[in-house]
Amino acid sequence: MMLKTHRAREVDESLEAKEVFLAGWVHTLRDLGGKKFIVLRDGTGLVQLVVEKGSKAFDVAQELTQESVVRAKGLVRTDKRAPRGVEVKVEEINILSRAKTPLPLDVSDKVSADLDTRLRERVLDLRRLEMQAVMRIQSAAVRAFREKLYSKGFLEVFTPKIIASATEGGAALFPVIYFGKEAFLAQSPQLYKELLAGSIERVFEVAPAWRAEESDTPFHLSEFVSMDVEAAFFDYNDIMDLLEDLIKGMIDGVQRECSDCLKELNYELPKFEFPIPKITYKDSIEILKKEGVDVKFGDDISTPLLRVLNKALGKDLYFITDWPSSARPFYTKAKGDDPSLSESFDLIFRSLEIVSGSTRNSSRDVLEESLKQRGLNPSSFEFFLRWFDYGMPPHAGFGMGLSRVMLMLTGLSSVKDVVAFPRDKKRLTP
Amino acid sequence: MMLKTHRAREVDESLEAKEVFLAGWVHTLRDLGGKKFIVLRDGTGLVQLVVEKGSKAFDVAQELTQESVVRAKGLVRTDKRAPRGVEVKVEEINILSRAKTPLPLDVSDKVSADLDTRLRERVLDLRRLEMQAVMRIQSAAVRAFREKLYSKGFLEVFTPKIIASATEGGAALFPVIYFGKEAFLAQSPQLYKELLAGSIERVFEVAPAWRAEESDTPFHLSEFVSMDVEAAFFDYNDIMDLLEDLIKGMIDGVQRECSDCLKELNYELPKFEFPIPKITYKDSIEILKKEGVDVKFGDDISTPLLRVLNKALGKDLYFITDWPSSARPFYTKAKGDDPSLSESFDLIFRSLEIVSGSTRNSSRDVLEESLKQRGLNPSSFEFFLRWFDYGMPPHAGFGMGLSRVMLMLTGLSSVKDVVAFPRDKKRLTP
Repeated sequence: MMLKTHRAREVDESLEAKEVFLAGWVHTLRDLGGKKFIVLRDGTGLVQLVVEKGSKAFDVAQELTQESVVRAKGLVRTDKRAPRGVEVKVEEINILSRAKTPLPLDVSDKVSADLDTRLRERVLDLRRLEMQAVMRIQSAAVRAFREKLYSKGFLEVFTPKIIASATEGGAALFPVIYFGKEAFLAQSPQLYKELLAGSIERVFEVAPAWRAEESDTPFHLSEFVSMDVEAAFFDYNDIMDLLEDLIKGMIDGVQRECSDCLKELNYELPKFEFPIPKITYKDSIEILKKEGVDVKFGDDISTPLLRVLNKALGKDLYFITDWPSSARPFYTKAKGDDPSLSESFDLIFRSLEIVSGSTRNSSRDVLEESLKQRGLNPSSFEFFLRWFDYGMPPHAGFGMGLSRVMLMLTGLSSVKDVVAFPRDKKRLTP
Repeated sequence: MMLKTHRAREVDESLEAKEVFLAGWVHTLRDLGGKKFIVLRDGTGLVQLVVEKGSKAFDVAQELTQESVVRAKGLVRTDKRAPRGVEVKVEEINILSRAKTPLPLDVSDKVSADLDTRLRERVLDLRRLEMQAVMRIQSAAVRAFREKLYSKGFLEVFTPKIIASATEGGAALFPVIYFGKEAFLAQSPQLYKELLAGSIERVFEVAPAWRAEESDTPFHLSEFVSMDVEAAFFDYNDIMDLLEDLIKGMIDGVQRECSDCLKELNYELPKFEFPIPKITYKDSIEILKKEGVDVKFGDDISTPLLRVLNKALGKDLYFITDWPSSARPFYTKAKGDDPSLSESFDLIFRSLEIVSGSTRNSSRDVLEESLKQRGLNPSSFEFFLRWFDYGMPPHAGFGMGLSRVMLMLTGLSSVKDVVAFPRDKKRLTP
């Protein structure tokens, strides 16, 4: 038998005078006259329990500590003074797991510890209402992303994560010992999703990817969830159109499913301009120069430069398109009219790249040349290249970092904060 | 501009006399007195193109090879002789990518190569209609699984895949070199999903997991997609009820979304008995003994034994419950009335375990004892155990192997066949 008849959020005025069984964590405890007020928390939110003096339940409630797990039976009653206008008068209460005191991290207070402490005490930290809101927003966002893709005929796929060679260049790889041989963790599903687009046309994947990032920034993790799309017979403009729909879908999904979470985070989703404005890389460089930045064609546009650009443009969400071919990976297609530029884009949220995409090369000869130009050996990529002999359609796609998109959807400032158990150079537990 | 106005399957009688742009692969080519018939394939299926002699398109069509990628413009016309009663009279056709001949694997024929050959030539193999059907069934099944869980208030989570220590015992781990230190690939999200159930109550994850399986069987891979559920305030009976709903949901989803795929595979989904029958481990052993099998309490029930049991029971889908505690992992809860047995189950499809689940231990003392009994050192699990001091609810959950469920949903016989790019001891590419 399930331990509860209702979840916390489900207790509302419609249940007036009904008996309910609830179970959850003791969020707060308060004594008031001959009564104890317990705010009970579960995965849906909070509900107030009242235990009256003289009852057997009162004796049990005396033993309670914050974050202890309890099960309670009681009657629902409306009371304007209670949060949400409803409370449960407790008839029986059992302690299922008694929490030690003191807690290494306070769960109920909005007074927050620093991120390092919170990540060390993460299991308690995730119980905080703000983190519960973050986890719900994430689930809703990923769901909306997938739903939009299903509706456009995309299939969800699963690509191998243990691979024989690098996809995005040789640096930043984690080696795996695979039955005595060396292999690597996939930096992205790039080459496999291209092959799948070359087999089944429209695919997407939401899965972990790894980069051995030495740098400790609020925007990098060594393990991250990559949301990948690849489609045959699309070019980068088609992909930008699709991506715009996906961004809209995710924002709508979060607004619809999680308005209370946004409130909990005290965050309003930004109102973006649609269609999303596009600016070319070349124009971006010109604007930066006008802003006094010492930058030239071919340079990367790093986060500090994006900050300047963001300010100059006055846009919160924008595409930077047509990047120099030399600045993009070997699989990126050059522009027909100017091969020094590529059919590529980044989607920028303020000063953060959240998506990177392009039309891909679909010719074996061009790919081989492109690998050589980058000092890579085509024969190491034969497992990929050989399929281009057997009917490879034009195709395009993108990779989106879930945790970066989550910064846009939550207003938080570090990807470490939006990932349940982040991995970086110094963090391998919890 | 998108290269196509319609996908192959969308071309039907409602488009009579309309101009369409199509793009895809040349599935088959046929000459028939002054006409060429091209069956064009894309990710949705097939459509017949007709190219008439004397047209410019006819000259281009002369150059075509199987699996070449083309774009065609033409007029839709109904014709009872055509597959699906409709064809496209081609006005223009362009070759986007010309496939070499001969192909290393025939894509259009139902005459199939052996699995080893097909896995080597997998990108072509995935273009076969049967494999396209498998990929669509997989996408629909996972979608239905998630939808059912959302409707029951579960949140999708992402747990770390690089971990500091083993979860399911020390064997069968893949070591990762993590910034110069040794770490491992997660064998399952077990301990992290438990911690998340202890924070946010109801969670699920669909993600890769790894086992360094030495054995080469049709039911094992070294990398697999694990569908995991964990819920606070559930016990194993609640989880079996939930799992039953999920199985129903997946079967309904596949039936609804993919009836044509099942037809392509010439497969009918089995009609299971609901509620799913339950048999205890003890009774299973008794039945096996009656069938003349040399087996005793405490023994594992391996696939050959499950075959005997399946036959004796006459059931295609059944739970084996209440396994010996000694046969289950340390986190499994023992039964209150007989600690030699545990609150655990396997879900068996014919003779294959497709799900394994249990009520989990939620007491630190019991967990420490359980680790010791298995020769494991509690201090290695401190990253997990310490949270049990701070209010850990009773909880339960399961892990389901996607590729094994796919055998049930497709009628295929090897998990290597249902995974796009399977990984085993000898396979690291493609």
